[in-house]
Amino acid sequence: MSAQPLWWQRDDLTFVDGELNLAGSPLGHLAEGMGTPTFFYSAARVRAKLEQIHAALGSTGLAYRIFYAMKANRFAPLLTFLRGTGLCGIDACSPQELHHALSCGFSAGDVSYTATAMSETDLDILARHPETLINCDSLSSIRRLGQRCPGREIGLRINPGKGVSYGNNQLLQYSGGRTTKFGIYREQFADALAMAKQYDLKVVRIHFHVGIGYLPPQLPLWEQVVEECLWFIDQVPGLRSVNMGGGLGLPHVLTDRPLDLEQWAGIIRRHFGPRGLEVCVEPGDFVVKDSGVLILRVNSVEKRRETIYVGVDGGFNLAVEPFFYQLPCEPVPVRITGPVAEVYAAEALETVSIAGNINEALDVWAHDVALPPLAEGDLLAFINIGGYASAMSSNHCMRGQFNERLLFPA
Amino acid sequence: MSAQPLWWQRDDLTFVDGELNLAGSPLGHLAEGMGTPTFFYSAARVRAKLEQIHAALGSTGLAYRIFYAMKANRFAPLLTFLRGTGLCGIDACSPQELHHALSCGFSAGDVSYTATAMSETDLDILARHPETLINCDSLSSIRRLGQRCPGREIGLRINPGKGVSYGNNQLLQYSGGRTTKFGIYREQFADALAMAKQYDLKVVRIHFHVGIGYLPPQLPLWEQVVEECLWFIDQVPGLRSVNMGGGLGLPHVLTDRPLDLEQWAGIIRRHFGPRGLEVCVEPGDFVVKDSGVLILRVNSVEKRRETIYVGVDGGFNLAVEPFFYQLPCEPVPVRITGPVAEVYAAEALETVSIAGNINEALDVWAHDVALPPLAEGDLLAFINIGGYASAMSSNHCMRGQFNERLLFPA
Repeated sequence: MSAQPLWWQRDDLTFVDGELNLAGSPLGHLAEGMGTPTFFYSAARVRAKLEQIHAALGSTGLAYRIFYAMKANRFAPLLTFLRGTGLCGIDACSPQELHHALSCGFSAGDVSYTATAMSETDLDILARHPETLINCDSLSSIRRLGQRCPGREIGLRINPGKGVSYGNNQLLQYSGGRTTKFGIYREQFADALAMAKQYDLKVVRIHFHVGIGYLPPQLPLWEQVVEECLWFIDQVPGLRSVNMGGGLGLPHVLTDRPLDLEQWAGIIRRHFGPRGLEVCVEPGDFVVKDSGVLILRVNSVEKRRETIYVGVDGGFNLAVEPFFYQLPCEPVPVRITGPVAEVYAAEALETVSIAGNINEALDVWAHDVALPPLAEGDLLAFINIGGYASAMSSNHCMRGQFNERLLFPA
Repeated sequence: MSAQPLWWQRDDLTFVDGELNLAGSPLGHLAEGMGTPTFFYSAARVRAKLEQIHAALGSTGLAYRIFYAMKANRFAPLLTFLRGTGLCGIDACSPQELHHALSCGFSAGDVSYTATAMSETDLDILARHPETLINCDSLSSIRRLGQRCPGREIGLRINPGKGVSYGNNQLLQYSGGRTTKFGIYREQFADALAMAKQYDLKVVRIHFHVGIGYLPPQLPLWEQVVEECLWFIDQVPGLRSVNMGGGLGLPHVLTDRPLDLEQWAGIIRRHFGPRGLEVCVEPGDFVVKDSGVLILRVNSVEKRRETIYVGVDGGFNLAVEPFFYQLPCEPVPVRITGPVAEVYAAEALETVSIAGNINEALDVWAHDVALPPLAEGDLLAFINIGGYASAMSSNHCMRGQFNERLLFPA
């Protein structure tokens, strides 16, 4: 197949002899072996995404570190693979995540820890890992960490008061607009520095994280956020590092353009370069989302009034984003008969809605999408589902069973 | 305490000597023993709610059955308690739920099974439980069940094309408006009956379920739905039973009035009485929601700009409804110092926002609510959280740990 008419097709995610392949593996064949639902992740794709970030940050000439945000996907084989690459540390947000990262081979010093509403127990555990890089997001956590670990180096998570997100979706903004629960605002920053000083905590890092999924249209706004952060940075003598959080986006639909990492790195170089800061980033989705494909079985195809509903054997409890965040998730048939251009020719497509197997009204994966015709027993893939899917899954209606599988190149 | 100025207070959910009690148990004391987060459920309250439905349905003079919708809360001790009362069967929607009901003491004949997008495996399992009452919601499931169990009695889940829901929330409607994935529409009903006949399946029951959380303002619309269902009922000679699904609501906020069960039963008597049908109902939330209280620990109290954020040790992964469905969840301090009227006097209250411990922007339990002042280390309750909370919980950010405890009267 030479033509690549589908926006999401890549060398490692495409049809081979009529079957959807990821990382050179035929997904229909593999799903028939393991059953459905199964999430497949491409190790090579994850590595490639990390290498893209390395290249961009390397081009700035600044020292840098990458911490993978494990809340996007904590599948143990995936974490262990990441550890093996040596390309990243871990961004953790709970003691359980920290310990899971250690379980998978990371050391405490590989972990950047940024949490909110920390409990006494959380802080007790952090105190036992002095090498972990902690970013405090409140005066309360500075005080309570200081009581346990006077003299420790810390970061401060600040809130620049501006947010960015995919499609400017308010649900995905972590700062901006209404006062949010995250980070220390300008108004409280002097108190935060005084509190750190009181406990002899050394502030060596500023951390900000301002949204999810930003793409080229959001980069100018992201640059404004960066500029806002300079105010905080310039208040802290001896600062070594700035952690820009995560939020790097990737395309969800045909009309999305990929993030321009060169432009992104330019912003970083322009603002942090003159200050000689180490820059850190905590990508989650950017690293794993488009490495992942979920395979489901079509259980029923049926006309209801004038709508054709395709019923599949997995629902919103396996991947909440399309349902609760209105982040579209692209359905793809696992097997097609004929060249892509013909199979996807407008006149060959059928408009269908794809429903999960959960007894809830919102459990519809996609409304009125044009797809090659599907039949009962067929396999259906959802692509771009490697992040914030299995990690947020629930056992609602006791439909929480699924497999996960890490694919290495054959 | 004699005055009851708070809308949610009941004899079994109130302050006793300054501590929130459920079913005569002091929740602060118990939560300190087990730790937080902990869900407490009152067995007596659950029983009382079931008895309310029994009284209402008994007043119709019709034969009736109650099937508790276990997807609302499948906590095994709760299910086993329900089995012991003999007051209800179970509404299940997956083979795993069916088997869990059996585990907790129910028999297969106690279970009404209504699912969507059933897999071949699901149907194989159902075929092994011939006493279970199955309601087919599609031609596909009629055909595939018929292939396995010719001659079996079945129900048909129909879609009356109209929906009702709490506050007319579209997310909670199962029929009406856009063609939904649930039930057989008028347009396909003749085909469904023919399909059943082809496999010698005997249609003895019509099932409908049209929304969630209906209260007095929705009852006139609910009656229209019932009238719409009569069209289906009158197509099926020899019909024995009508299952009205669930959806019975309960108050979430001060201005909500409880469902008037007498009025509800009047609608049932008026329409189903003349036809001599057995009536079935599948309440979930109505039975368990206001039996449940979640206790969390306040980890931090901190001003961010002009907003006071109270940070607690549990987040949206433990109870998604307030976050994703905008169903308000009432916060209540576990301990107060002084009479309720004084503690809740307007001038004594503080306006706060309550944030969970998950690193997501939407993880705020309540924005700008007036509460008695809270301090770090205090306990905070969320009431009306016995349904669709723990059952839908996830381990997002690995913050999925919690306890559950069934309380019997002392």
